Formats: sequence, C-alpha cells, structure tokens
Amino acid sequence: MNTPFADRLMAAVRDKGTPACVGLDPLIERLPENLRKKHAIDTAATDACGADARSRIANAFVEFGQGVIRAVAPHVPAIKINIAFFERYHTEGIRAYHELVQASHEAGLIVIGDVKRADIGHTSMQYAIAQLGGEGIPPSAVADAITINPYFGSDGVAPFIEVAHAQNRGLFVLVQTSNPSASEVQGLTLPDGLTVCQHVAKLVQTWAAGEGLIGDSGYSCVGAVVSPRDLESTVRIRELMPNCIFLVPGFGAQGRTAGEVAKCFKEDGTGALVTASRSVIYAFNDPKYGDAHGDHWRACVEAACKDLVVALRDAVGITGAKTPH
Amino acid sequence: MNTPFADRLMAAVRDKGTPACVGLDPLIERLPENLRKKHAIDTAATDACGADARSRIANAFVEFGQGVIRAVAPHVPAIKINIAFFERYHTEGIRAYHELVQASHEAGLIVIGDVKRADIGHTSMQYAIAQLGGEGIPPSAVADAITINPYFGSDGVAPFIEVAHAQNRGLFVLVQTSNPSASEVQGLTLPDGLTVCQHVAKLVQTWAAGEGLIGDSGYSCVGAVVSPRDLESTVRIRELMPNCIFLVPGFGAQGRTAGEVAKCFKEDGTGALVTASRSVIYAFNDPKYGDAHGDHWRACVEAACKDLVVALRDAVGITGAKTPH
Repeated sequence: MNTPFADRLMAAVRDKGTPACVGLDPLIERLPENLRKKHAIDTAATDACGADARSRIANAFVEFGQGVIRAVAPHVPAIKINIAFFERYHTEGIRAYHELVQASHEAGLIVIGDVKRADIGHTSMQYAIAQLGGEGIPPSAVADAITINPYFGSDGVAPFIEVAHAQNRGLFVLVQTSNPSASEVQGLTLPDGLTVCQHVAKLVQTWAAGEGLIGDSGYSCVGAVVSPRDLESTVRIRELMPNCIFLVPGFGAQGRTAGEVAKCFKEDGTGALVTASRSVIYAFNDPKYGDAHGDHWRACVEAACKDLVVALRDAVGITGAKTPH
Repeated sequence: MNTPFADRLMAAVRDKGTPACVGLDPLIERLPENLRKKHAIDTAATDACGADARSRIANAFVEFGQGVIRAVAPHVPAIKINIAFFERYHTEGIRAYHELVQASHEAGLIVIGDVKRADIGHTSMQYAIAQLGGEGIPPSAVADAITINPYFGSDGVAPFIEVAHAQNRGLFVLVQTSNPSASEVQGLTLPDGLTVCQHVAKLVQTWAAGEGLIGDSGYSCVGAVVSPRDLESTVRIRELMPNCIFLVPGFGAQGRTAGEVAKCFKEDGTGALVTASRSVIYAFNDPKYGDAHGDHWRACVEAACKDLVVALRDAVGITGAKTPH
C-alpha cells in the first residue's frame, strides 16, 4: 500500500494482461440453488424481518462472493463490489461487504468499492474514512478505490481526495453513467457547447491534477466513471481527462459495444478498466455455461471470466499494456 | 403508516406548531465528556482498529442520540439523522443508526434518513429497500423519508419513488446544496437561462406530480433539498416545485439567514422543514448554554432546540400552519 493507487492498478492490469474487472452485485434470487438451500434461504425465510434471516442471506453472499473471487482472481486484476446489494441487509449485509473486500485483498485483487457516496465537506470526510480507511478502520476491510458522485462540487469531493491520497487509495468520480435517462442531467448542453458531464469531466481533471496526485504511470488517484454513449463524445471525454483512469461499466449485460469501449482507452492501450458483472457472476444461469443446480457454478463463473478477457482482447484489441504508437 | 408521508409530515408540523427539524450528526470528539468517559473512549481506544473500539463508540452514539431525541421530541416534529457519521464505524455504526431511527419513531418524531444515495435502476432498488423498507426489513428500523441524489436522472430515481409510495414514506431529492462550491455543477447556466439546479427542480416537480403521489395536503412524497442562496433564486425555485416540501439545511451553524429561509415556504406558511444540527446538538459546548463536562448536556440541547423554534417563529414568522392570505 506504499505505491499510489493508479500505479498499483496499472501494474496489476499489465501483470494480468487485461483491463477486465468483474463486478459483484449479489441478488439472493439469482444465487446458485444449492447455495440457497445450504443457507436455508427460501421465500418464507426472506419474508421474515429478523436479523437471523438477513444473517443467513449475508452468509450466502459471503460464500458466493468467495467463490467468485477464487474463480476470477487468476484472470483479472480487479473486482468491483457494489455496496447497495449488501446495505440491502443492514448490519448483516455490511459485515458481508467488508468480509468480501478483505477476501478480495487476500486473493491479490484490486478492490473497487462501488459506493457512489457524496455529501458536503465534513460529512464527506466521514464517508471517506469509512470507505477508504483511517483511524479505527482496519486497512484490510476497505476498498482500494471507491466511486463518488460530483453533484456537490469541489468541497464535497476534497475530503475524499485527502483520504485517498493519504491512504494510497483511489476514487472514480461519476461523469457519464450507463443508464438510459443519464442524459436528463448529465447530457444538458451548456452555452459553450459542452454538456454537463463534459463540464464535470473538466472539473475531475482539475482534481486529478492536484499536487502530488499523479503517479509514475501518469495517472492520478482521481479517476472517472465513464460509460461510452457514442464514438465522438467518448473521444472528446477521453481528451478532457488525460490523467484519469476510466472505470467503464456496461460491457456485457448492459450492452456497450467493443468499439465504444475501445475509445475509453488512450492510444497507447492504457487508461481504462472495463467491468462486466451479471454476464460473469451469473454465468451458471446462462445456457451457454449453464449449471444453476449443481456444484459447478464456480467453473461456469471462471469460464465466463476467461471469455470476458478474450472478448476484450479480441474485439477491443487491448491488453492494458502500453503499446508503441 | 397508512397516511401518505407528506400529509403525516404536514400534520406533525401543525401539531408541534413549528417547521423546525433537528439534525443528528454525531462526532465522537464533540460528545459530552462524561459520555466519552462512561464508554471508555479516549484517543488510545479510537486508534485501535478493532470492532470493540467501534462498538463502544457506537454505544456512545446511541446514548447521545437517545438523549437528543428525548430532549427535542416535545418541541419539534422531525429529526434528520445523517448516516455518514454512523457508516464511519462500519457494522457497529450502522447498528447504532437503525437503533436511533427506531428510538425516533418511538418518541413520535418523523425521521429523515440523510443518506444521499443514488445509483442506476436495479441498484437503486436495493438502496430504496434498505433505507425505506421492504421484504426482510423491520418497518421500525427505517426512516420515514430519505435524501437522494439526482445525477442519474429519472430511471435512477424511479425505484426510490416506487418504494416510497408503496411504504407511505418520502424522498428529498438534492436540488441546491448548502456548501460553497455547490455552484460548480448546480449553478451552471443553461441556454434557456435556467441553472442546472433549476432544471433539476423542474425534473423533481415532474417526479413529484406522478400518479397518486400527491396527498391531501397538496404535497407529494417527493420533496427537495433546497439551501437558499439569495432571495430571487429562492423565489424562483419555490415556484418551480409547487408540490414539493423543501428540506432546508443550514439554519444555524451553516449561516443561512431568516429572510432567505422564509422564501422556502409558500405564502400560506407551509411547504418547508428547516433543519439545524450542530447549533442544537452541541449546545453544551456553546458558552451561551455551556455545560460540556456535567450531566446537564440534555438540558442544554433542549434549551437550544426551544431557541431554534422561537428563532424560526420570531424571525421567519412561520409556525408551519396554514395562514390565510
């Protein structure tokens, strides 16, 4: 943890030879059937409001997550864990989230906590310490980087940057999200011709270029969440944030194409991490891999993870290593 | 809980004769000294990374919060609890948050969970159930309403509205926040002359006017967080959201004036809830009330709460009851 986050991430991408990241978004109704049975999870149980039911679900999430981590760790540099799916089960779920963050560290994965937090200054500091580390928080329990929301502007983001820098961890600021109605706010066009999200991109680059934040890799601990929408705007947004690593959601289930994703990388083949979630972690429900009932769900997840790596390499032509140009 | 949220809140404001709301943002270093001693909290202990230290802090937060709740419940209709200060202590803190939500319900207060969550659709649904209720979640453990962030647009907000409506609970969407750099994104001016936050206000009004969401009070379960910046823009933003209750932060420590706050109300004297946090809950550190070391901190909080009610009544001239005009 003595190396800046961006340099650690770029080294991990080089080592694994792929900029692929697996997203872990566990939904109880989509877990393998034998795991649901083992933890006594059925409709009657989940209907109950008690901590016991939530605890059994949290335990199933931990076992599922550990299986996913073991299956994907040999193949990809990073895992993204979305805390919403754990917060859903209150304290029991939050315990499972931090256990899986720790298990990811132990498996040698870079862990991105997809928490999308934001508030005003002194409150942001509480979130920053909770999610990136500080007094009273075991370093192994918190992610290497988290996602945050830019709506508050600089002083809401500053505490996150302060903690990320101090802990050699990172941030991915939401710039352009993958949902259909993202354009309602992010896509508004300003008098200078930039959209709101392009203006946010300029702000993020300013934050990223703060004193001491850019590592040897040329990238900052402040990155951006960018879901490509079309080739032209993606090229523009890549230019606006030269020092930012892009966290690119939506490859796979959310349907972004290889060509769109490719534009999130710089010409040298670096600068983005591409995530796929449901297409990998629920591969056992896909007829292509299909084994929802048996004990082979981990093998299905591993096969889908390897296919993700191949798809990124073949279609996008990118391995995450610097290419001469 | 069979009455729509907005009607319940407006009735509570009428019953208490004030639109004041106390914000609970506990910081360990600002708790009364005797409470810190009782729970064995000192620098050495908080330096430890263990669950035991976090648990002792969480217990102190619960005792402090219960004291605040008892002190303010006779005087104000609502309490706002910011989850960041609890999430800071991981599972132990989250337990304390839900315990204090429950204690607030038991004291007859409307509880606003200041969580500022947001994500894309199916992930927002997880946050919505976690924070507003649903399968497996005890209704007493979740807030009557929560704050959410609009950056994702309609489909990111829709699951929150769906759950709020189903559970007779409410939302306050961030429109204009109280921090100095809020204007960097929210204050950008669009070609039609509206700022981004005024455009968001129009979106929020659209959401608020959704089928079946407006109660007998004329207000929707979808409200807005609005920190007034100047008289003119506040009048404009009040006009843009006729069916939204405003949650108005920053009266007290954050320094909004009475005249600015008054413009967040409609002409009939309804439509806003005004929060003060640090000026009330840390009153024992204020020389005016001052008793940081003794056992009388609850009395100081109560005195400051009563002063808040008087300040709002005298300076703003508002009691939250409808006035003829």
